[in-house]
Amino acid sequence: QKPLLIIAGPCVIEDERMIRETALRLADLASTHEFQLVFKSSFDKANRTSIDSFRGPGLEKGLEILKIVHDETGLPVTTDLHLPEQAEAVAEVCAILQIPAFLARQTDLIAAASEAAVKHSRVVNIKKPQFVAPEDVIHAVRKCEYLNQNDVLLTERGTTFGYGRLVNDFQCIPIMQDMGCPVIYDATHSVQRPGGSTTGGAREMVPTLARGAVACGCDGVFMETHPNPDKALSDGPNQIRLEDMPTILEQLTQIRTLVNSFTEST
Amino acid sequence: QKPLLIIAGPCVIEDERMIRETALRLADLASTHEFQLVFKSSFDKANRTSIDSFRGPGLEKGLEILKIVHDETGLPVTTDLHLPEQAEAVAEVCAILQIPAFLARQTDLIAAASEAAVKHSRVVNIKKPQFVAPEDVIHAVRKCEYLNQNDVLLTERGTTFGYGRLVNDFQCIPIMQDMGCPVIYDATHSVQRPGGSTTGGAREMVPTLARGAVACGCDGVFMETHPNPDKALSDGPNQIRLEDMPTILEQLTQIRTLVNSFTEST
Amino acid sequence: QKPLLIIAGPCVIEDERMIRETALRLADLASTHEFQLVFKSSFDKANRTSIDSFRGPGLEKGLEILKIVHDETGLPVTTDLHLPEQAEAVAEVCAILQIPAFLARQTDLIAAASEAAVKHSRVVNIKKPQFVAPEDVIHAVRKCEYLNQNDVLLTERGTTFGYGRLVNDFQCIPIMQDMGCPVIYDATHSVQRPGGSTTGGAREMVPTLARGAVACGCDGVFMETHPNPDKALSDGPNQIRLEDMPTILEQLTQIRTLVNSFTEST
Amino acid sequence: QKPLLIIAGPCVIEDERMIRETALRLADLASTHEFQLVFKSSFDKANRTSIDSFRGPGLEKGLEILKIVHDETGLPVTTDLHLPEQAEAVAEVCAILQIPAFLARQTDLIAAASEAAVKHSRVVNIKKPQFVAPEDVIHAVRKCEYLNQNDVLLTERGTTFGYGRLVNDFQCIPIMQDMGCPVIYDATHSVQRPGGSTTGGAREMVPTLARGAVACGCDGVFMETHPNPDKALSDGPNQIRLEDMPTILEQLTQIRTLVNSFTEST
Repeated sequence: QKPLLIIAGPCVIEDERMIRETALRLADLASTHEFQLVFKSSFDKANRTSIDSFRGPGLEKGLEILKIVHDETGLPVTTDLHLPEQAEAVAEVCAILQIPAFLARQTDLIAAASEAAVKHSRVVNIKKPQFVAPEDVIHAVRKCEYLNQNDVLLTERGTTFGYGRLVNDFQCIPIMQDMGCPVIYDATHSVQRPGGSTTGGAREMVPTLARGAVACGCDGVFMETHPNPDKALSDGPNQIRLEDMPTILEQLTQIRTLVNSFTEST
Repeated sequence: QKPLLIIAGPCVIEDERMIRETALRLADLASTHEFQLVFKSSFDKANRTSIDSFRGPGLEKGLEILKIVHDETGLPVTTDLHLPEQAEAVAEVCAILQIPAFLARQTDLIAAASEAAVKHSRVVNIKKPQFVAPEDVIHAVRKCEYLNQNDVLLTERGTTFGYGRLVNDFQCIPIMQDMGCPVIYDATHSVQRPGGSTTGGAREMVPTLARGAVACGCDGVFMETHPNPDKALSDGPNQIRLEDMPTILEQLTQIRTLVNSFTEST
Repeated sequence: QKPLLIIAGPCVIEDERMIRETALRLADLASTHEFQLVFKSSFDKANRTSIDSFRGPGLEKGLEILKIVHDETGLPVTTDLHLPEQAEAVAEVCAILQIPAFLARQTDLIAAASEAAVKHSRVVNIKKPQFVAPEDVIHAVRKCEYLNQNDVLLTERGTTFGYGRLVNDFQCIPIMQDMGCPVIYDATHSVQRPGGSTTGGAREMVPTLARGAVACGCDGVFMETHPNPDKALSDGPNQIRLEDMPTILEQLTQIRTLVNSFTEST
Repeated sequence: QKPLLIIAGPCVIEDERMIRETALRLADLASTHEFQLVFKSSFDKANRTSIDSFRGPGLEKGLEILKIVHDETGLPVTTDLHLPEQAEAVAEVCAILQIPAFLARQTDLIAAASEAAVKHSRVVNIKKPQFVAPEDVIHAVRKCEYLNQNDVLLTERGTTFGYGRLVNDFQCIPIMQDMGCPVIYDATHSVQRPGGSTTGGAREMVPTLARGAVACGCDGVFMETHPNPDKALSDGPNQIRLEDMPTILEQLTQIRTLVNSFTEST
């Protein structure tokens, strides 16, 4: 039975020291638990609400830091790309190439990521766009397969639900798994309020929904975590405090083990 | 720690024998598991799609059968009412008076149910309408409280999501619990396709989503079950085969126990 | 070419004098314009948010006042009913029996309204529920037809769009007209915010959307109007000031005439 | 009073001859009507459902053909761009640079388009993403303004409404106009069914909804048109037959004139 895949890290690479410290603590956690950990952080927040918001260190410096994380901790790393020309560089460093939800219909980006992933034996992780039905993600999967990239993850990160709110349809999980792809539940972005209004309760919802997704059978959970979310340069209200991760991950692992036992006995 | 509340039974009272047999088997299950069982079946499907569909035995005969079930099995029973004048008769027999989602804004129905519930020390179970935000169910709760009915359950049964589809927003569960009411997850109606189109996969989604809801912390699960769903006179494609209930309920109970252990340790 | 049907009046019957004065002014307007006017006001707001809100004068007194309006102005009148037993009394006075959106799936209510409408040669006006696709309103229409009530209006009053907001899908208009029923656009309730939050801009949206609906080919427009909306006992923020009705109705009539000319020339 | 802006043309540049012929016929129409016409066609469909679908002639060849159209007909032309590096070339030829809905949050694309537009005195047309509230488009507008691009159009092209369907919220029109931007109604993409299912009725809905949008006060209408939509290489079911354009545009112009007269008299 495959253990749960946990993709975690700060939303954006704020600086090298903070990233390395966070990664080391996550690596510690992973070494004593039954889940697989992949470290994630973004080198560029390419679609911030404001043009003058902090975006990150950029491709080159960002990948350099992710490579240090990988070398230092042994953890596989992942990040998101925004333009076709970034794929090759990302695939050199990252085990998983993440396609942002808004861009998951851009054929050239999927193609470039697939080609680089094939070359470097990497995984492509497609985030289901907020405006796409789970059934229709098959079209993005087929673009990958057309280019011989068969190792595809799909991520549920919420679906547009009226204005200013997302909803998770957990029926997505089995529907997308039926495409032959493991499904990751992105708990952090699922509780975002599009448009930027924030609410105090978002962070508290993250572990609740993550527990639900694991019980529904998802293969992995994505969660942003930060040593000090209230000072985070992006996505602060939704990031989990690093100090809360041990308990949350312990609980998710226990649910996973229980749910795995159901399948075994069937 | 409170055990899970399971509300189960055939969608509609088709005939006395079938109802009694189903109830006996559910009572057997309840006696060997750590959940509380309430038997539910409807005396009248008052909002069928077609005017000439089977609706049930009606108030009098229906309550007579539910009383037999209660006397024979010791199980508490519940049913849904549609008109204020039905409240008193329902409260004489049923431990829980269920307010249908479409009618949960009708003040006179809530008032009649509350008054009868107060008189007979019953519970009122309000199904969150498909068109109402979880935050706004507070208005229905307050109508009950205004009439001194403080024992109120709230049921999540899916929210309108475009045409012809519902979605469960599991954030509903903690939001509605914060009103001081236990929250039931209605897995059967959550997978219904409004408009009547049916799909083969609906029944398979029921246990998946129920597991998710229990992991999110809901207090109970509502599931329709039928000895032979393919011959059911209503809601066939969504009802669980009675023979599958032991496994499903066993799994839900185990998730509940695990989730309870998280809270204890906090 | 049929003129536009305008259904208008204060949300609820607040008192006899105010209703009569409003009706007289609307009748004046109707006498000088090319639209058909039906006066509407409710005798009971049966699903107010709070149990202690003003609900209206009740069935008997309300119908008495509507009868006075009819006798005094010659205008046909309409109101909404909530329980089957109200149908006969309503049909004695009202040219159109309005089925509230939340109740449009209740078979007994549709049946009682249809039977009374057949007996008194009245029209039944079914408001499309917020949770129903336009295609699926056919089931309610068929219930009427099953009882020989073939004179059915359908009203678009907005569809659930996430939490706390409605949206008008103007594709509803031709879709529902294809069922052989004239379609009324309810501009007032379409701008309501479910849950009760009100916004300053709602009233300003009413004429804008009404113009759009008429240009899309709807057969009529429903608009609540009040001599002093800021003091209205219900739905204040969405009701049109009576003094603004002449301009709005004049504009709608002109759009109707223009749109009619398109059809003629086809 | 400003005349209606019509943006029209075939979905994609299929070949030079067909584009020139279509443009000539549209220019003829424009010369005898009171609307402003901008010719639109895409050089690259960058987000087709399948990787092997026809995408168009590409940037260089596509702009060459659009330049011929402009030189031959005198019509301003517009097209959509997908990558920041395309902005300068597009701005050399096109009066309006169109930002696709899926990409309207990509800061670098908006920035590149704005900078090129400032340099060449062009307009930027931002399509409101399907997953964004009208209020929140202000953030994209501000990114333009930050770079001194103040000539911004906003296009309503439908909002995600459940799976597989879009809905137009015509309240968008005044809401987005309040940002100081003219609002275009994209009738073609508003009737698309996301996921690729097509229905016979979509093309018939286009003029109906366009009439509604003009009556609601939009400043322009976008409509794809093709000499033979059933043979179109993209978006066939939604494109208007070129032969139907005269009637549709005549009607929209008449509604515009009527609606303009309302404003004048206020």
